[in-house]
Order: sequence, then C-alpha cells, then structure tokens
Amino acid sequence: MSRKDTSAQNNGSRRETVIEHVLTRLRQIGITDVFGVAGDFAFPIHDAICKRDDMEWIGCSNELNASYAADGYARVKGIAALSTTYGVGELSAIAGVAGAYAESLPIFHLVGMPSLSLQESHAKVHHTLGNGEFHIFSHMAESVVCAQAIMTPQNAAFETERLIAAALFHRKPVYMAFPADCVNLPIASTAQQVPAPASDPTTLEQATEAIVTAIAGAKRACILPGILVSRAGLKNEMQAVVDASGLPFASMFMDKAVLDEQQANYVGIYNGALMNEQVRQFVEGSDWILGVGTALTDFNTGAFTSKIDMDKTIGIGLHSTRVGRMTYPNIEMKHILAALAIRLPRRTDIVGPAPTTIEGPLGKNSDPITAEKLYPRFAKFLKPSDILVAETGTSALGMMFAHMPVNSSFFNQSLWGAIGWATPSAFGAAVAAPERRVVLITGEGSHQLTAQEISQFARRKLRPIVFVLNNDGYLVERLLCEDPEIAYNDIAQWNYADLPHALGCNDWFTVRVTTCGELDAAIESALKAGSGAYIEVVTGKYEAPPLAMKFHESVHTLYSAQ
Amino acid sequence: MSRKDTSAQNNGSRRETVIEHVLTRLRQIGITDVFGVAGDFAFPIHDAICKRDDMEWIGCSNELNASYAADGYARVKGIAALSTTYGVGELSAIAGVAGAYAESLPIFHLVGMPSLSLQESHAKVHHTLGNGEFHIFSHMAESVVCAQAIMTPQNAAFETERLIAAALFHRKPVYMAFPADCVNLPIASTAQQVPAPASDPTTLEQATEAIVTAIAGAKRACILPGILVSRAGLKNEMQAVVDASGLPFASMFMDKAVLDEQQANYVGIYNGALMNEQVRQFVEGSDWILGVGTALTDFNTGAFTSKIDMDKTIGIGLHSTRVGRMTYPNIEMKHILAALAIRLPRRTDIVGPAPTTIEGPLGKNSDPITAEKLYPRFAKFLKPSDILVAETGTSALGMMFAHMPVNSSFFNQSLWGAIGWATPSAFGAAVAAPERRVVLITGEGSHQLTAQEISQFARRKLRPIVFVLNNDGYLVERLLCEDPEIAYNDIAQWNYADLPHALGCNDWFTVRVTTCGELDAAIESALKAGSGAYIEVVTGKYEAPPLAMKFHESVHTLYSAQ
Repeated sequence: MSRKDTSAQNNGSRRETVIEHVLTRLRQIGITDVFGVAGDFAFPIHDAICKRDDMEWIGCSNELNASYAADGYARVKGIAALSTTYGVGELSAIAGVAGAYAESLPIFHLVGMPSLSLQESHAKVHHTLGNGEFHIFSHMAESVVCAQAIMTPQNAAFETERLIAAALFHRKPVYMAFPADCVNLPIASTAQQVPAPASDPTTLEQATEAIVTAIAGAKRACILPGILVSRAGLKNEMQAVVDASGLPFASMFMDKAVLDEQQANYVGIYNGALMNEQVRQFVEGSDWILGVGTALTDFNTGAFTSKIDMDKTIGIGLHSTRVGRMTYPNIEMKHILAALAIRLPRRTDIVGPAPTTIEGPLGKNSDPITAEKLYPRFAKFLKPSDILVAETGTSALGMMFAHMPVNSSFFNQSLWGAIGWATPSAFGAAVAAPERRVVLITGEGSHQLTAQEISQFARRKLRPIVFVLNNDGYLVERLLCEDPEIAYNDIAQWNYADLPHALGCNDWFTVRVTTCGELDAAIESALKAGSGAYIEVVTGKYEAPPLAMKFHESVHTLYSAQ
Repeated sequence: MSRKDTSAQNNGSRRETVIEHVLTRLRQIGITDVFGVAGDFAFPIHDAICKRDDMEWIGCSNELNASYAADGYARVKGIAALSTTYGVGELSAIAGVAGAYAESLPIFHLVGMPSLSLQESHAKVHHTLGNGEFHIFSHMAESVVCAQAIMTPQNAAFETERLIAAALFHRKPVYMAFPADCVNLPIASTAQQVPAPASDPTTLEQATEAIVTAIAGAKRACILPGILVSRAGLKNEMQAVVDASGLPFASMFMDKAVLDEQQANYVGIYNGALMNEQVRQFVEGSDWILGVGTALTDFNTGAFTSKIDMDKTIGIGLHSTRVGRMTYPNIEMKHILAALAIRLPRRTDIVGPAPTTIEGPLGKNSDPITAEKLYPRFAKFLKPSDILVAETGTSALGMMFAHMPVNSSFFNQSLWGAIGWATPSAFGAAVAAPERRVVLITGEGSHQLTAQEISQFARRKLRPIVFVLNNDGYLVERLLCEDPEIAYNDIAQWNYADLPHALGCNDWFTVRVTTCGELDAAIESALKAGSGAYIEVVTGKYEAPPLAMKFHESVHTLYSAQ
C-alpha cells in the first residue's frame, strides 16, 4: 500500500491528508478502482487517486454511466467507489446511486465540494443554483444513501469508519463530500475500526432451533436463496446449507444464479403463476420455504401472482430472521447460515422437479431471428465463468430461463429497472474482473441511453461480447402500454454496427445480422476475433420471449395493489 | 385547440381528464412540444400527449438529454415541458432540471407516478427503492424547483394555475407528479387563472424617480442588460430604455447578446479585470451602473475581479429594484422598464468605447488550427438570426468575444456549467425554432457526455451545423487543475467524424479537419450541403482562447471567497 508522495519525501513523518486517509481505508477494504468524471471542485480528490500506485482512476463518459459502472463493479467485488464534482456531477450520478440503493450495492460516492470559506461567503459560483446555498445537493443525496458526511480534518477518521461500517452493514451507498479547503489538510483525528456486527447468541440459538424443527418436521421443504446472499458475500455459506440439508432450491427473478444452477438441487426459476408451473407447484406446495435474502417484489413474484403463506415461510435477512410470524432480531445472516449448515437434518427424501433450460428449434440459414430461436442460441453461447449482463426489458426476461453454466454470473437490475443501466454496468464488471468474459445483451432502445460507454471497453483493452437486439423501438413498453404502435415507443434509427468504430473500438469485430445463419456465423467470427465483438441482431418488432408476453397479459396485477 | 378524443365522440359533454386539463393549459401558455423518455408509470401522460393534434411528443435518447433539450427549447420560447417516468426517469433528469433552476428557465416536469392505491399498499415495485416509500423522489425534487404538486382530480384545476403562476413569476422549473390512477379521471374542480403580478404604484414611482435623478446627474453612466431580461421576455422593453436614454451598454458573461450587439450603444463584454480593459475602465468609471436582471457570479465578474461599488449601482430584478443601498420591493421589471423608457433623460454626451470582435490572422492551407485562427473563423461564420450554442468550457470562453450578428442568439450555461449540456440543448433549440440555423460549438470531452442526441436532429430532419473541437481531453480542466497532464483529463479516443452516420444521420456532411485550409473547405461544403453538418476540428492539446488562459492565471480568485 505505497503512496508515491508520502513515504519517500517525508521519511514517514508526514501525516496523511484527509483524502489520503479515506482512500487508504477504501483500498484496505478492497477498492482498487474509482469511477467518475473529473470536475474542478473535485480535482484534489482526483489528484490523490491518480497519485496512488495501488488505485486506478477510471474516467467514464458521463456521471450517470460512471455510477452504473460502479454498480457493475460492486456486483463483482461487493463494493465500489465513484467520484464526481459538485452539483452538476453528483446530481447527474444520483439516479445510478439510487439504483445501487435499490439493488443493495455499497458504493462510496466521493463528491468534491467548494471550500468551506467559499460556502461561508455565499458567493454565486458555478455548479450551484446561484442562491448562495451549498448544502442542497448533500441533502438531496440523503434519501438514496444509508449514511453521509462532510469530511473535515477533525472528523475524517471516525466518519470514515462510520461510513464504511454503514455501507457494509446495510449494503447501501454512502455519500462523502470533501470541501476543497479540507481535502488536502493533514488529518487531525484518530478512530478505531468498527467491529463486524455480532449476533445475539440466545436469539441465534432460538432461531436456529426453530428452523431446524420446522425443516425436520416438513413433509416438503425448499430453499429460495436470494440476492442479498450474493451481496453479503455469503455464497459459500449458503451453498453449505444446501449441501448439508439436501434441500432443493429455486430462484426468484432478482436472485438468479446466486447459487450455481448446474447442481442437482436446483429446480429452476420460480416466478409465481407466470412461468414454470412445475416449479410453482413444488415451491408453493412446500410446508416450509426457507428464503434467504429475498424480497417479494413485483418481478420476483411474477407480477404478484405468487402465493406464499407467511406461516409457511422462513425469512433470513441480513440482520434478523423470521420463522412464520415470529421475528428474531440481531441475528447476522452469516452466523445463522453457519449454524444451519451444522444443524439442519439432511433430507434426501425431498426431490424437486428437474430444471429446464430454454430450448427450441435453432433454425438456420435464412430463417428470420425469432424470439424462440434467439434466446436458446444465447443460452448455448454462454460458457463457465461468464458474466452475463442482461439489460432491463426483454433481454433479462428472455435470459432468465437460460440454465447458467458453472461459476457464471447473471446480472440484471430488476428492482430499480432503469433502462440504460446494462451497458455501463457491463463495463464496470469488466474492470472488476478483466479475466472473465463479459457478455452484454441489451435492447437497442435501452442501449441508446448510455451507448457511449462502449468506448471505455476499448480504451482499457477489455473485450466484451455485446449483443444489441434491434427490434425497432422499446419492445417491452409496446407490450405494457395501451397502444403498442404509439409514437413514444419509436426511437431514432441508428446504424448500430457502425457505432463501435465511431467510438474508437477500432479493432472490434462488428456486424449486423438479420437471419439465423448470419447470427451463427457472427458468433463464430466473434469467438475467433480475439477482440471485443458487437453484434446487432435484427428481429421483428414484436419478437418477445415468453415471460415478456406473460407480463403483457398480466398488466393488471403488475400495476395494482394486492 | 382541438383534441381528437373529446369533442367528436362526446359532443362536448365529456369532462376533461386531469392530464387533458394540464396539457390544455400548457398549450395555452405556448408549449407545443414535450421532451422526454417513455416509461411505464408515465404511459397515461405520454398517451395523452401523443393523442393531441396541437402538441408533439419529442422522444429523446435519455432523460438527462431530454432535460437539456427542454432547457434549449425554453431559451428560445421562454418555457418548456419535460416528461419522465417515476424514480429512474425523474432522477436521471434531475441534474438538468437543477440546471434550469440555476439558469432561470421555467420547465414543467411532468412525472408519472405509481397509482395512489399501489402507494398505499407500500408494495415493492420496480422503479422504487424497494422500501415501500413513494414520496422520496418528489421530496428530492423540491430543492430544484420553485413549486410542486401531486395532481389529483380534486386539486388539478387550482394546482395547475398555481404552478403556472409560480413558474412564470420565478422563471424556475416546477414539478407535477401524476399518480397513474388519477391521471385519466375527470377533473373535479375549477379555478381562476392567477392574474399577472402587479407593481405597487407608489414604490414604482419612487424607484423610477430615484433612477431618473441618478442617471440625470451622472457624469458617466452605463447599462448592463442581464439574462433575466431575456428570460422574462422583455428584450423590447429593455431596448426601449437603451434607445430612450442613449446610454452605452456592456454585457457580462451570462448576459451576452441579450440585446443586439450590432448597435451603436454596445461597448462590448465586461469581464472584470480579465479582459477588455477599455470596457472595464468605462464600466467601473461610471458614476451609475444600471444593471437589469444581472447577477454577480464568478464567471460574470471575471473570477471576482470586477470592482463595482454597491453605492454606484442600480439593480432591477424581476420583482424588486435597488438603487444604491435602497431596495424598492414589489416592482415588476416590466413596469419599471416601461416607466424608464418614458422618463429617462436622453444622454447623447456619454460615449463608450467601440466594441471589438475577435480577429486574427486567419491562416490558410496547411496552417495548423490554433486558437487565434479558430475563434475568429467561427465569428466570421455566424450570420443573422443564428442560434449559437456554445458548450461550457473553451467553446463558450472563446466565442464570448465574437461580435454577434443581428437577431442572433448566444446560448451558454455559465452558472450551472454542466459539461454535456450543449449538444441536447442545441437539439431543443432547433425544435423550438426550426426556421433558424442552429450552430453548435462543443469540445469533444463535453460532447462525449451526451453525444447520442445528435441522432435526434436527423430523426426530425433538423439541420444544425456542429463543430466538435478535438483537443485530446478536457482542455479547460487542464488549465484549472494542478497537473494538466494528469490522467483524469484524458478521454477515450473517438472517431468523431464517423459518429453522425452511426447515429443515423445518413445524409449529413461530416469531416475531420486538421488544417486551416481543410477547415475552410469543410465550412464551404457544409454550407452547400443542405443537410446537417458535423465537423471535427482537430487542434493542439493546449489551444485555448485568451479568456481560458486568463482563468488559468486566475485560479486563485476563481475558487476563493472574496
């Protein structure tokens, strides 16, 4: 953990500055890259990042894209950092930070702020509303982070510890603002690191016992491993519970591929009454359902068509556990998973349905690319350790039912559901895991929001495989609105296959395909190219996967209170 | 003002719905276009817009771009409308709405919201933070609008009048949220339009008299017409004061070209001690300076180097007037300008310096494109009635000193100062004034933030002339930070001249030029092309106009309290 400036020139006697201290702590908890856009009030922060040997500045095309890139990075690494300038920068990123809040991704948002002396003068300076107020934007951020602070030499040590603890405890973003006249001052405080949260031993024992009793007495039981397992970095602990108990498990929408789908205990995607009737019957017919880090959102419940009785469910959250109607507070997910892996009885008698994957007639040659031919092709294309980033909309709805290969990841943003998220998020994931293949599947309408971030892959010599589904507009919106042909579902016509070159991806393989044969040849060429690849896949205007059609038929329950 | 649905099918007896009522009122005050991105919770709003014959839905590539487009439209038309979906959409646009607040542009932001019944159920639905809260985002918007409301059948009539009045009074954005189960209900209320604000006649008389006395007794006096004159639509009234008084006028940064620069009374840009020493001496040597709708921001004051004594200034604001240290409340700018045009004595004895424009050796053939050759070329290129949109950064700093042709407009965003603003703002301006030529000058770093909006020009057959200055990174940041060569000032390398085609501008003239001769030929071709034109102008890394260099030398005063 060397810093160019300090040790050599100062013989170790120079005190750390505020920003150096924060960056050192962020580095210690695993952050090696900071996404952002440079801006004048944030120069001292960005200077400090660029001066470090152990951290990299990842400039993005704009701040929203930077926030999505940080999101993708956090999906891989568990945490991420984002830095923007005051006002214009931070507000441009705030939608992505809110998305990280919804999706439980701890992002440290480092914001450069005008100096305290400038703030006190109430001067009308650029990047403000011109009303002499300087706390408006930090106040706006409050609602979409779990903790925030304005960093000074006096508070930097303990605020840093508090914010790190809050981000890791809640798995939500935090906001740190640095006044320009504080950021490079020597730190004038000390603080202890906040210890990892403990469980109450008595409550833990009681909850464990209640779950063991419930599962042991169940005629049928199953597990729903949820996204928070992944967010908390507890996949191994979760897998140990599956292995010990022998229980089958299903996944809801947000939770796809949290555990490896290539194992005998996996029964498939549970999406209420919309899809996979066998899985629905198995899950809803269980005496006990052990949910771990799940949430009953609209997309997780198949537009609120799932029927899960509270009295038959166990809900293990990050910091509390519920068994039926009884809640046990102060229990860490990590601790109860460990206890369950030891104490749960092994049930070899409960066998779930075999999972299916998406299959269909692959077609060939001049066959048009229909939905039933497209998604199975993508499913076949995936290989172990891939990171698949599936954009909100038909891309995610289609890939949901692909049987994911060993060690692969499936990223989607189904709660926040911002179109445009996927392209920069895929870039962030690629920065976090340059050794893994990143596959991005996006609709062209979503892609238009953030397409310029394609340029950042090439700039950093990253080589994703990008599929852009061109179906002439916002398809999922056509399926959800009243008149599918209404003007607002149309978009500008781009020549997508020409875009990577314009964006500086000079050596990429790019192509536009309109038939199954062309798509197969393009995939073949992409695999051989050894470069990034960008394939525009032209389909009919209404080529939607089955789940998208189900949502189309379920518009009423999707938008109504239950 | 016909609506397809109502009159024909319902014989005039059907009551207006909430959204129909709001749109009708917005149409009545001059809004003919609504910018935005479609999204499910906002479908009923967007349906209602698309169904009207007298209003157009202007789909943008993303919500931030839509907000900037609305900004550009409001610069031309005085008001604008923007519509986005809940959460993901509105937060993506909030930075642009904040910019409109800073720059005093009234934008009506129409947000689609989940139904009240869904809100009451606290369901975990997409586009929320998943915590069952539904008022977080409207709360966040509060700080960057002057008024807001959640529209229901019961309040729609009077809230519409209140919000219109607030937007026009303050010249700031307003926020209107429409719950999905209210938007299409018949309106259940009535309201009177809010009358235009009145001035207190006694105070108006006293202030007028004080100003007339001051100007009559001044040995030297001058006017600084400010941006709020333009925002309030009072250019003619302001011009009448100049004509009646015969006083010379100068412009500050934000205020450029508020009045026609091709008139005898114009003396040039006043930018504190940074530039135009003759103008500085003339303005600061005046006994009285009559500022109308101006603000002493950092950029307006030449990084706080201007020396204007409060005792020597008159400040006419939108709703109050100050003479020296005496403030006269409740005076409408419109009324006092009218009074002054009648009552001010005509001073033919005060003569200011002649305005200069930017000139220099134009160079030719293989001469490299230096700053001193570039900006004079742009100045020569401009013609009457042009709308020049100059991006934050060196583009605006360079064009500030061009002498603008008759009836032309100069748009820049110098208070909010968000890079990326110019490209979509130019699109919005072109939508508002399709009969005028729109010239966009942007640095390539700024352009990368929002470049996809270029596609919207072609989609709507608009034909701007776009100059993209490629100086290999964020030049103005290189000039303001500590180490100009630091990594964060570098950006991805794009092939800009290939971008318009990739974005569907199939018939545009596009070219990359590196010499004066090539630039001249490109301009020639662009003028002949009859299509949109996009010219990438490659300069050296540090080719900055004089004011940018002055800011570079004035970094200390730019960032310090006075």
